[in-house]
Order: sequence, then structure tokens, then C-alpha cells
Amino acid sequence: MRVVCPGSFDPVTNGHMDIITRSAALFDEVIVAVLINEAKTGLFTVEERMALLREATADYPNVKVESFRGLLVDFCRARDARVVVKGIRAVSDFDYELQMAQMNHGLTGVETLFMPTNPLYSFLSSSLVKEVARWGGDVSAHVPGPVAARMAELFQQCQG
Amino acid sequence: MRVVCPGSFDPVTNGHMDIITRSAALFDEVIVAVLINEAKTGLFTVEERMALLREATADYPNVKVESFRGLLVDFCRARDARVVVKGIRAVSDFDYELQMAQMNHGLTGVETLFMPTNPLYSFLSSSLVKEVARWGGDVSAHVPGPVAARMAELFQQCQG
Amino acid sequence: MRVVCPGSFDPVTNGHMDIITRSAALFDEVIVAVLINEAKTGLFTVEERMALLREATADYPNVKVESFRGLLVDFCRARDARVVVKGIRAVSDFDYELQMAQMNHGLTGVETLFMPTNPLYSFLSSSLVKEVARWGGDVSAHVPGPVAARMAELFQQCQG
Amino acid sequence: MRVVCPGSFDPVTNGHMDIITRSAALFDEVIVAVLINEAKTGLFTVEERMALLREATADYPNVKVESFRGLLVDFCRARDARVVVKGIRAVSDFDYELQMAQMNHGLTGVETLFMPTNPLYSFLSSSLVKEVARWGGDVSAHVPGPVAARMAELFQQCQG
Amino acid sequence: MRVVCPGSFDPVTNGHMDIITRSAALFDEVIVAVLINEAKTGLFTVEERMALLREATADYPNVKVESFRGLLVDFCRARDARVVVKGIRAVSDFDYELQMAQMNHGLTGVETLFMPTNPLYSFLSSSLVKEVARWGGDVSAHVPGPVAARMAELFQQCQG
Amino acid sequence: MRVVCPGSFDPVTNGHMDIITRSAALFDEVIVAVLINEAKTGLFTVEERMALLREATADYPNVKVESFRGLLVDFCRARDARVVVKGIRAVSDFDYELQMAQMNHGLTGVETLFMPTNPLYSFLSSSLVKEVARWGGDVSAHVPGPVAARMAELFQQCQG
Repeated sequence: MRVVCPGSFDPVTNGHMDIITRSAALFDEVIVAVLINEAKTGLFTVEERMALLREATADYPNVKVESFRGLLVDFCRARDARVVVKGIRAVSDFDYELQMAQMNHGLTGVETLFMPTNPLYSFLSSSLVKEVARWGGDVSAHVPGPVAARMAELFQQCQG
Repeated sequence: MRVVCPGSFDPVTNGHMDIITRSAALFDEVIVAVLINEAKTGLFTVEERMALLREATADYPNVKVESFRGLLVDFCRARDARVVVKGIRAVSDFDYELQMAQMNHGLTGVETLFMPTNPLYSFLSSSLVKEVARWGGDVSAHVPGPVAARMAELFQQCQG
Repeated sequence: MRVVCPGSFDPVTNGHMDIITRSAALFDEVIVAVLINEAKTGLFTVEERMALLREATADYPNVKVESFRGLLVDFCRARDARVVVKGIRAVSDFDYELQMAQMNHGLTGVETLFMPTNPLYSFLSSSLVKEVARWGGDVSAHVPGPVAARMAELFQQCQG
Repeated sequence: MRVVCPGSFDPVTNGHMDIITRSAALFDEVIVAVLINEAKTGLFTVEERMALLREATADYPNVKVESFRGLLVDFCRARDARVVVKGIRAVSDFDYELQMAQMNHGLTGVETLFMPTNPLYSFLSSSLVKEVARWGGDVSAHVPGPVAARMAELFQQCQG
Repeated sequence: MRVVCPGSFDPVTNGHMDIITRSAALFDEVIVAVLINEAKTGLFTVEERMALLREATADYPNVKVESFRGLLVDFCRARDARVVVKGIRAVSDFDYELQMAQMNHGLTGVETLFMPTNPLYSFLSSSLVKEVARWGGDVSAHVPGPVAARMAELFQQCQG
Repeated sequence: MRVVCPGSFDPVTNGHMDIITRSAALFDEVIVAVLINEAKTGLFTVEERMALLREATADYPNVKVESFRGLLVDFCRARDARVVVKGIRAVSDFDYELQMAQMNHGLTGVETLFMPTNPLYSFLSSSLVKEVARWGGDVSAHVPGPVAARMAELFQQCQG
């Protein structure tokens, strides 16, 4: 089975990596799909996010990294994927994600499966990681090595 | 009893319609009150939202559509309405709405009654519907006919 | 409009009284309906609960106290009441109450309206009040006077 | 992939059927696993529950019905199933299920995937259905036909 | 023990005051720490917020008002405070605050203790108070006297 | 400051230990208070629970283990403790605990401070641990060593 793990991944955290690698162990093929959102400027460009994701998932031959614009259901249809896998950390995630899942199921029949995030990473989010890194906090326990390095670089330039 | 159903209605969805029509079956008079929020640009102007609401509620003689600026409690007082009716879909709605209800009750004694949204519409929101329509997704099951038509028009122009 | 406020009321608390009296101010007639649950022994018999409720609501001519056995929807139909009013204190109430409300609506079309409990009483429950009173704690701020008196009597006998 | 859908199924509802049949469409093999809980007397015996499940899933050749005693993770290991699929209706389900999922993952590495229940069935539970049927309410919209028939029989005997 | 009560305090409400004064009764020293957030323009400048807080806490000799920029954990370390105290009103607060608390604990070992807000203030927030005051609503029951006076002044100027 | 950590501790888990030891690092004195609940038979007697707690906290000279009967607020008053510390794992804990905290504060002014459980233990509960151990599952990662040993003994006897 081919599944899609969608997200902004600005940048990928160890929480995302937990979901991606466990999905890769269960399913034949995992497409990590980076949403292109023109209305929102990220810390990293979509290309940088994809490069960091590719580096972080290099050891998983059945993981592919792509980007998409528009509706997730259209991307899934184009890739012939019937299942979306989403990590779920906490109750506040759940309401919104459930809403999206039910809308998407109604649109094309695509299924969303929720995988509980490892408790170790349950408090992580890309925005929290960026906030910490921006002020020089150590995020090396929360993101893959290359991401930590790239963020250190970025924020040093800002302050340099 | 006269009740007020407030909201942004940008645009009205079948979830809103469910609450409005069930309120119209219970109460003598229902005022659908569109909030004018100068700080936020909607997809539809307040006038368009009201026109769509009027078309959608045309069969309900005890439903009136109005707009208001400022505090909901002041609007209720001006209309001599002691009760606000709000649909409630999910837990995440609930905390915020409860906060508003208790503040409003403290200000003027106005009561807020929460009506559970039909589960069929529990995943609907105006913003989700707009996102789907923006990318050409079919929302005709989620909004009244004239709203679907108007959105198709709007987004075709954008892409045309 | 005639509405039903159902519950176990073992015993009635100031939180219940808040919902009952605010309902009495909004609706023409309020039937407080005490559920007879043979499977569960209460602190008070159903007759005592009704007597305490009648004493507590004596000043509200449009409030009637009754008991019922079986399904709430059947009781509502028998009383020709189309609306149930329930107090809602917190999120944990909400999920269960929503489930009941939607099942009941599906069975007979009866509507459930949720009224937010006054924050002052948001932490009250009959079982918490009984637990406190059982150990001699002062509950006079949490229940109507006659209830506090009756509980003091009951628990003194136990320990006497 | 072989997945396990565990539960008490006392009795199976249309909400359970929604999860089972959607799982059957996604995965190679679905084992519906009825928990044998000696500490709790159900309305139906485990054998009756299994018979009703088999009748309800007869059209799905890749669905098997079994029972188990003890830990779900041991059953999964014995059946060589690495994935549990659970329906998730509401936030109150979620906290408990997440706890179980994380404990189970820690014990044997078994993964739990949560599938959002169709909103149409989001308010259903076996215990609510039994309560309604016990008092003669119509549950034919909420359970498979043979279950409704069997419950009508059972509760008529009680009252007969 | 020295504790830190962080926040935006734009402006301080009676809900904040409840947490600050109860903390002052428990702990040796309370530092109220106003976050300087360059990315967000408040109604009051950081200096005004601090002046209002100082006026409101004048009777509490063990309360100090300061401001900070950057990470809360760095501020706590600089002040040699091992504990953060946060008010908690409702479930929706809880998920986000828990995330922050766990990230902060991971960064420096600082502990966050949550103190339940007095139910009387459970529906208050700075933004709700500002919204009400902006439209001429009476907020004198929700904020310290000098804050109410200052807001009346500010919003009269806007409309004057 | 002297604080009380109340609970059933049937048996103590690593989640409890996390809260107790972090409390011991913050406060002068920690009283672990085991509730004596005559209405409920535990796996361990209150004496066994206290012995296991004493063994597990032997390295913490400022931790004392006691038992109490009746209201927590009366125990706190008898020990001259003005603060209760409770671990908080998830949203579903929160509503109930908040209710208790607010009732207790109203009764005697005792404060309850909530400390977020380490995410590593966020899915642990005494009852889940007992369920796993009962069926021979390995719980050595979830409870202190002597507890694991004692449970293995107990459940082997049952099956022996």
C-alpha cells in the first residue's frame, strides 16, 4: 500500500521523523508531501524543506519526498494513494485533523489513519522548535542533525 | 421568544442552515446576525453574505437576516432578544464559545444556548469549504445551492 | 415553550438550581424530571429528591417536578415537550452529553439545548458534594439550605 | 497487511461495521477480535457476539471473527499482526485509546492506527444502543438487521 | 522559593491578579515577567503594562515586575528561578501550555506548575476584555481599577 | 514549604515517582498520602502500598509516606500543608482534577498545583499496569523494581 504523509515540514522535526519511519516500516511506499502554501512565508523554502527531508530519510528506500499545491485529495488521487497517515500528539490536534479527515473522505473517499506520536516527541512542533532556535536554544534533541545545523547557521546570520 | 444566531457566515454552510432552521422550528423569531468585522477581509462582502442567507432562508418566514457591528450583547439588547443560539460541533469550539457565553451573560444577562450540530455537518466550516472550493473541489454537498454557484463563479474568475 | 431538565438530582445542587431557574426565566414551563434508575441506589430516594427539588423551586410557579423511568425521549413525548435543557460545565461533560443529544434527536426529533453553568458552580457535582458531606465537610455554599440540612442529618446518623 | 479490530462488540453497531468494512477495503486481512472479559457480564455471550459479527461481515471474505483472552498485544503476536485499527469518535475516546496504544507499542512494538468514525455514527455506542433497546426504542438504524432482531427478542422476553 | 509568572499582560486582568496574589501567598518571591514580543503590537506598550502591573501589585511586597525578551528559560536562569507558575483556565489552554512546559523542562530543567484559575475568572482573557472595552462595554469587574480607567481613556480617544 | 502528593498508589508507578521526586527537589517536605478507601478493594493493601512507596523513595530524605481516610483537605490541615501537588498527564485527567482542586480551595483555601508528567510516563496508570502484569506482560519499565517483583509474585500465585 502507498500512503501519503502530508505537512508543512518547516522544518522536519523528530516527531515527524517518528511518524515517517514507522509508516515506512508498515507500508510499501511512503510519500512525504510538502504543502506549498503561497500565502505563508516559511523559515525554509519548500526546496530546502524537501532537501532536508531527503537527507533525513535517505536510509529509507521506500520513502519519497514530493511537494504539492492545492488540495491534498487531488495529490493523493494523482499519486494513486488511498491513505493519508497523520501523526497525532494531543487532543487539540485531534479536532482539527478529524474535520480535515472527514471532509477529505467525503470528497474522494481517501482514508486518513492517525498514528499516535511517540510520547517523547509529543510536545514538539516546528514552530516551537523555530522559536527556541531563534533565541539560541539548543534544539539538537528535537530535529535531525542537518536541520539543527542549518537552523544554527540561519539564526547566527540574523544575529551576526 | 426571539433568538439571535450570530456569525460571520462567509459563506453560510449547511451546518449553519441546520442550526438556523432547527431554531426557526423551536422559537418564534430567529434573527441571523452577520458580524461586520472591519479588521478582516472576507471572501464575500457583508451584503453578499446577507443576500445569500436571505435566499437560503426564504422558506422560513420567522427568520430575518441582519448585520451588526460591535458587541453582540448590544445588538441583542437593541433587538430585545434575550437568547443567543450557537451551533456546537466539537470540543475545540466549546472552550472558546463558553468563554464568550459567560462574558456576555456577565455583561447584560443575555443567555447563550448551544445546539449540537447534526453529525452530518460536524466537520464543516466556512474556511474549510472556501479552501476546497478555491482549488476546484466540489462543495455542493456542504453549502446551499446558490452559495456553491457563487463560489464556483468567484474562483473560476480567479483562475480564468 | 415547555422544556425538560432531566437528571438524577441525588441531591440537587446550586449548579442544578442555576440551570433550572435560568430556564424558568426563559421558557413558559420547566419540568424537572428525576430519572428512576433501579440499577443504582442513591443517597436519597426518588421521593426525597423530588421533595427537596420542590422545596428548592417553590418560588418558581412555572417549574414542575416529576420523575420518569425509561427513555427521556418517551417522557418528553408523553409531556409534549420538544426541548431538553442541560447544563454544561466542562469539556468532559460535553462529549457524553453530545452523544446522548444526537441519539435522542435521531429517535424522536427532540432537541437538546446546552446552557453553560455559571462558572461559580462549574466544579460542583452531586457526587462531589456527597463525598464532602459524608466526611463532615461544609457544603452549605454548594446546595440549597434544606439539602444541606438533610445531608447533615443523614451523615450524622451514620456516624452517631 | 493483516490488521486486528478489537472490541467487546456487545453488540456490534453500525459504527463498528463502518470501521470494519473500511478496514477490509484497505488491508489484506481483518481479524475482528472479541475480548473475553470474565469480570463483566454482557448482554450477549461471546459466542452470540461472534455469530452476529460473522453474519454482519459475511460479504467480506477477508474479514475473520475470533475471540481472545488476556492482552491484545499477545493476541496480535500469536496472529502475526503488527497493526491494530481502532475507530475514534470523539475526544473523550481519544485520551484513553492513546494511552492504550502507547502502552501496547511499548510492550511489543505493535502499532495502533486510528480511523475516524463516519460522523453519521459518531454518537453510537453499544451501551447507548442497549439502553435504548431495553426500553423499546427503535435501534434498527444503528445496528445491523440481525442484531436489531435479536435485541428485540431479548428485551421482549424480559418484559413478556 | 522564587517563581516566575510570565505573560503578555496586555493588559493585566483579574484572572492574572488571582494567580499572582495566590502565588505571592505561597512563595517567597514572585517575578511577574512581561514578554517583549517585537512581532506583535499590543494595545499597551510594555512599559505601560509594567506600570499597570506595579500599581495593581503594590500591596504585595514580594512581587516584582520585570520584562524579558527571548526564551522564558533563559530569563528564569538569569533570575535563578527554578519554577514557572501559570494559571490554567480551561482545556484549550492546557494542551498548548503543556507543550511549552515540557519543552522548557527539557531545555533547562525549569519546572512549570499550573494553578487553576478561580472559576469566577475562568472566562476572562486580555483579548476578550479589550474587545469588550473597545466597544464601550463595562469591564470594571474584570480588570483592576487603574486598567479599566486607562482603557476607557484609550478607547474614548479613538472614538472622540 | 510542605506539600502533599495524594493518590491511591495501587501500586506506585514510574509516573508517580516522577512527580514525587521532582516535588522533593522543589519543596522542603513532601508527604505522599495514600487514600484509604474502604469501598474499593485494591490489588495491594494500604500497608503494602506504603511499604512499596517507602522503599521506592528511600533515597529522598524529605519524602514521608502516610495514609489518610476522609477528605484530603482535612489531612492537609492536620499536617499544616497548604499545597497539594498532582501530576497531570492528559486532558481527561484535567477536568476531574480541576473540579476537585476548586472544591478543595473553596473548603479550606488549600491550593492544588499541577505538575505535568514527563511525557515518557504520560500513558501510565496503575490500572493499566495491573492489567498488563495480570496477563504476564513485562512492566519492569513502568514501575519501580520492588513493585515489579511483587506483582510478578502475586500474579504467579494466581496462576500457579
